[in-house]
Amino acid sequence: MALTSLSKGRVVALAGGVGGAKLAHGLAQILPPDRLTIIVNTGDDFEHLGLTICPDIDTVLYNLAEVNNPRFGWGRADETFHVLDEARRLGHDAWFLLGDKDIALHLLRRSMLDAGMTLTQVTLELARRLGVRHPVLPMSDHPVRTIIRTPEGELPFQEYFVRRRTEPVMLGMRLAGLAQARPSRQVRAALDAADVVILCPSNPFVSIGPILALPGVRERIATKPALAVSPIIQGQALKGPAAKMMEEQGLEVSALGVARYYAGLIEGFVLDQKDAILAEGVRALGMTPLVTDTIMRDKTQRVRLAQEILRFADGLPGR
Amino acid sequence: MALTSLSKGRVVALAGGVGGAKLAHGLAQILPPDRLTIIVNTGDDFEHLGLTICPDIDTVLYNLAEVNNPRFGWGRADETFHVLDEARRLGHDAWFLLGDKDIALHLLRRSMLDAGMTLTQVTLELARRLGVRHPVLPMSDHPVRTIIRTPEGELPFQEYFVRRRTEPVMLGMRLAGLAQARPSRQVRAALDAADVVILCPSNPFVSIGPILALPGVRERIATKPALAVSPIIQGQALKGPAAKMMEEQGLEVSALGVARYYAGLIEGFVLDQKDAILAEGVRALGMTPLVTDTIMRDKTQRVRLAQEILRFADGLPGR
Repeated sequence: MALTSLSKGRVVALAGGVGGAKLAHGLAQILPPDRLTIIVNTGDDFEHLGLTICPDIDTVLYNLAEVNNPRFGWGRADETFHVLDEARRLGHDAWFLLGDKDIALHLLRRSMLDAGMTLTQVTLELARRLGVRHPVLPMSDHPVRTIIRTPEGELPFQEYFVRRRTEPVMLGMRLAGLAQARPSRQVRAALDAADVVILCPSNPFVSIGPILALPGVRERIATKPALAVSPIIQGQALKGPAAKMMEEQGLEVSALGVARYYAGLIEGFVLDQKDAILAEGVRALGMTPLVTDTIMRDKTQRVRLAQEILRFADGLPGR
Repeated sequence: MALTSLSKGRVVALAGGVGGAKLAHGLAQILPPDRLTIIVNTGDDFEHLGLTICPDIDTVLYNLAEVNNPRFGWGRADETFHVLDEARRLGHDAWFLLGDKDIALHLLRRSMLDAGMTLTQVTLELARRLGVRHPVLPMSDHPVRTIIRTPEGELPFQEYFVRRRTEPVMLGMRLAGLAQARPSRQVRAALDAADVVILCPSNPFVSIGPILALPGVRERIATKPALAVSPIIQGQALKGPAAKMMEEQGLEVSALGVARYYAGLIEGFVLDQKDAILAEGVRALGMTPLVTDTIMRDKTQRVRLAQEILRFADGLPGR
């Protein structure tokens, strides 16, 4: 595949929360809407305070619309919390923070779901209203819910992640609803049409893992040039519990551990320059490494990394 | 019944929105929680922006909790509109105003309903959280929805009342869902235990009417001393479309017209001093009139009117 991803190929990016949203934002600055589709994890979704909350979808939407809160990594910029303050006064245990602007979007989502729209239709409509031009697709219209097994028993993902701040040891996880779930028609079509698939720097277990677990997704990606970007730099996750989870799963906590996790699925692996020493290990797994600065502090860095990754994708062997 | 309502009797008040909420608030200053139950119209309820909105219940709750907005007659005092402003930016046609504090209560209601609680259970729980000690009961746990017939076709009540500002002519009305609806167990028990029933100064058609339309409610009230307070003064409604509706229904637009509407159900009728001339007409209907100042501008006036009405109730003939 020569120069296709930069010049004319179609790219599908799989994304979870913050890291994935940043790279998706960078890619969206380069590729037009008909050449970039972002497929987003819904395993983090949950029902709370009467709302269907889709943290990863919203982080991607808010980043693409450039209305995200850069300080928190979640939610909207210039946000207030009047509703939550009052809900707290009325006895609500407000362990999950929802700002007023965020709640506005959630109420629209709720009323659209109540009206019978699928989550895919709702997400595309919310994207349109936010001015997002690239297709952002939930991985499935069937609810899939990540459950973390801990010594205290099973915890729904957000209880583990937000309420308990990932303190309990993760013994394992399961995806409730997976047996009934299918990737949506739009997800299947995007993967079928893709010239390259990019696994964004999101948590391999709870962000990318649920997308890959849907029937037919791995098989489709396996027929395409694909690459992953490590969310682990120097043994640490830039954000979130990926490193802690890897350790508790008995995996090597490094970019190499991430590459091994994706072995058999991808041909290219992007690791940070601080981990340059691991490039040989990546090569030994049969993957082509790209060593570069993977930290995206601002929009310029997001676009630069996206550019490098697209150029790298063009050099990957086809299938 | 001698002095029972003031000294030991049990009072049930039927209420709609603003006028009913004001009198209920006055009564609640005099009667302890075990002697006053407020049964509230739910015909105005509707689903909007993903929420179940119960305007009359909330107006009663907010008045009893003394957190109501005295200027608007609906919603909370010291309110902001951050959520609605953002929803509007996201394309929501915000014809029904919901403030941030109001939305907090609605989200709690929504999550309690989603958890399987009945509207009665939800309302009692919200009352408790607002610090309201008197039982506030929705008339039914079955959805009943007031539909206004107009020359343009049928309009759900809030579309007619808020969105269209009651402009279309009311040709008639119907209560969707009435055939399946029953008064709740708690409503039936309160009416059975009542020593006197007070029909608050709310719209006879769309506020008190739906409560009376539920099977068994009229029959129960007919066995009790009962009185109504006119929402019409000098041919005008203090608030809302009652006068316009009466005119369009071909009824006499006066306190006497209201008294006639309730004929056969009540023994006492409270009319404003400005309508003193109508007292004889009320008497001719076989009702005892009470002529007094019925305008409740502040809490003192609410309590004074409630006192007078309770004293008046004590003098009504028993059954």
